[in-house]
Amino acid sequence: MNVLVLGAGQLARMMALAVKPLNIEIRAYDVGSKQVLNPLAPEQVFGNLTDGIQYADAITAEFEHVAHDVLALCEASGKLKPTSQAIKIGGDRRLEKQLLEQCQADNAKHVIVKDKESFDEALNQLSLPIIFKSALEGYDGKGQWRLKFESQTSQTWLELNEFLKSNAKQGIVAEQMVPFQREVSLVGMRGHNGEIKVYPLTENHHTDGVLSVSLALDNEQKIQQQATEVFTRLTNKIDYVGTLAIEFFQVGDKLLVNEIAPRVHNSGHWTQQGADTCQFANHIRAVCGLPLGNTELIRPTAMINILGEDTIPNQMLSMPGVAVHWYGKSKRPGRKMGHINVSGDSQEQLNQRLSTIADILPDAAFADINAYIKGKC
Amino acid sequence: MNVLVLGAGQLARMMALAVKPLNIEIRAYDVGSKQVLNPLAPEQVFGNLTDGIQYADAITAEFEHVAHDVLALCEASGKLKPTSQAIKIGGDRRLEKQLLEQCQADNAKHVIVKDKESFDEALNQLSLPIIFKSALEGYDGKGQWRLKFESQTSQTWLELNEFLKSNAKQGIVAEQMVPFQREVSLVGMRGHNGEIKVYPLTENHHTDGVLSVSLALDNEQKIQQQATEVFTRLTNKIDYVGTLAIEFFQVGDKLLVNEIAPRVHNSGHWTQQGADTCQFANHIRAVCGLPLGNTELIRPTAMINILGEDTIPNQMLSMPGVAVHWYGKSKRPGRKMGHINVSGDSQEQLNQRLSTIADILPDAAFADINAYIKGKC
Repeated sequence: MNVLVLGAGQLARMMALAVKPLNIEIRAYDVGSKQVLNPLAPEQVFGNLTDGIQYADAITAEFEHVAHDVLALCEASGKLKPTSQAIKIGGDRRLEKQLLEQCQADNAKHVIVKDKESFDEALNQLSLPIIFKSALEGYDGKGQWRLKFESQTSQTWLELNEFLKSNAKQGIVAEQMVPFQREVSLVGMRGHNGEIKVYPLTENHHTDGVLSVSLALDNEQKIQQQATEVFTRLTNKIDYVGTLAIEFFQVGDKLLVNEIAPRVHNSGHWTQQGADTCQFANHIRAVCGLPLGNTELIRPTAMINILGEDTIPNQMLSMPGVAVHWYGKSKRPGRKMGHINVSGDSQEQLNQRLSTIADILPDAAFADINAYIKGKC
Repeated sequence: MNVLVLGAGQLARMMALAVKPLNIEIRAYDVGSKQVLNPLAPEQVFGNLTDGIQYADAITAEFEHVAHDVLALCEASGKLKPTSQAIKIGGDRRLEKQLLEQCQADNAKHVIVKDKESFDEALNQLSLPIIFKSALEGYDGKGQWRLKFESQTSQTWLELNEFLKSNAKQGIVAEQMVPFQREVSLVGMRGHNGEIKVYPLTENHHTDGVLSVSLALDNEQKIQQQATEVFTRLTNKIDYVGTLAIEFFQVGDKLLVNEIAPRVHNSGHWTQQGADTCQFANHIRAVCGLPLGNTELIRPTAMINILGEDTIPNQMLSMPGVAVHWYGKSKRPGRKMGHINVSGDSQEQLNQRLSTIADILPDAAFADINAYIKGKC
């Protein structure tokens, strides 16, 4: 089978690697150059979007910020999975909140802000601190404003108003800031026949607003069950097909949905080593109508992002339980350049390995990651 | 780094898949078309052998039957690993036997046959049954003659003589047939600095002379140690760099070398799921001068070859512990089309899974494999 992926970054690349053994060929639509290319050999160009659509048996996306005309063209072919509606939900916090309300999925108290009146409404309904998030194009902590003290109110409105005026399509979601213990996420798939499989939850750590470490959680049945129920309600509601990730804030024993990502997700990269079938393969299986693979944890596993660096100490390659995944990208500060999956036969062994890695990774680039890992082990 | 692989079959393809996450690019020299291509997108052609040699930081081979002028050209570049001598040993049973003698590696009693005189010598020195194997181009049971009864002697000589006369470079190795209990093989790597790592031995089953099932063996320390010693002596002797496989006949507690393959080997395909670092990645690491990855068994794992078939029942995709690897080849009777790796948390669970698989795989194509598996579980 042939699949076209909208987006030609590391996620499309890892999808291509994951399903090559199933004789499934992936081409990727680069939204920058507007060309279709081979994600495993980007210099190999196959034409434009129309050519890509024609080539494909199925079309999917590696990210939610795809231009709506591109989505419309793909949807018209009848091959797009998930639907453009589902992809748009991930790219617009207003639609996301609407879906959460429809599905009665617990989430932070919020108000949609589009003008001064709704801004005041937000201040009335929510108590400080409030976080304002841009409805469109916000990710990795970008497009966010925090209002902690009343004295910041007018300055905040000035900034928000300027932002809203800059783009008529934009909006703001004002959220009550939640004093959560940690962020966890659930990555799972819904198949074309409604079959649902989810991986174990992961605990996520962020560095400067960007995911930096994910730890697969195996023995947290109570929240695993909550998360799975939310996943099931959400994906059934929109007849979703493919991999989808839900980020949650954990408050006590309760999970509040933070964000939905209608795609493979950074917090699921550990599944390449920690599960029989990784999120990339399972996403493509879903959109191709193939049976989903097993999503159980096969070994305690964690993932460490490599941010802004293009080398790590060579000795890591010889460490048992370590798998290094580079994305073939050129170095830029803070850029997601690759990740390291770490597994062990037991949680104890995994912790030992993580602790050794924290000793090896240079603090210059990995200080926050090393500190977090040391705190866990 | 860039690596050129001599040979553009499934082994080059699996090497390319295995090391893409290390940002290592593989190009493959197709000995048929004499063109260099992308093993992950064979329609992408990059020029001829000279272009390929220039592109590469390191050159290696996926098989031992590479034309000697090609090997010479590659060796002259200073980039070929292992050496052409090592590759030729795998392609010529006379050189192989010579190396085994030099290393005092136990193997079947044998005589090199090049004419009637040495044929008679073989009959004198060996007792029936004798197996005659062509020195060059013999693999998967091809190019072999069996002499079981004295009455077949003149007929056998007629055939061998005709064969010898057909190619002045050919020769025959006459071997005492060994009444062995089973065939096992050891796959391991020697790094550029002499570092050696080996995987657990596998037990191999053949169907019509072609490997069809490999089972990783974890608790057979006595023969594992013997095999590792032979591996070490052989690879040190020829300053080998890369993955190498040794097939053994097991006779009681003793291993006799059957064959050496100076490359990644079908009996090591299980390492894709059963080890942290598979034989393909470790081969390329070795030839690139990178540290070798861990070779310990991480889960009990077995491999089943898919011979001559281009489909298997879809339900296998959803079975826990099952990973299907197709090679993207067109169907031909008996052709190696793909393989299935099967893992379990315990040997017991693996056996249960294998048993289920033997129930699912159609007997029309997998009768012998199913019978072997059922006998094991």
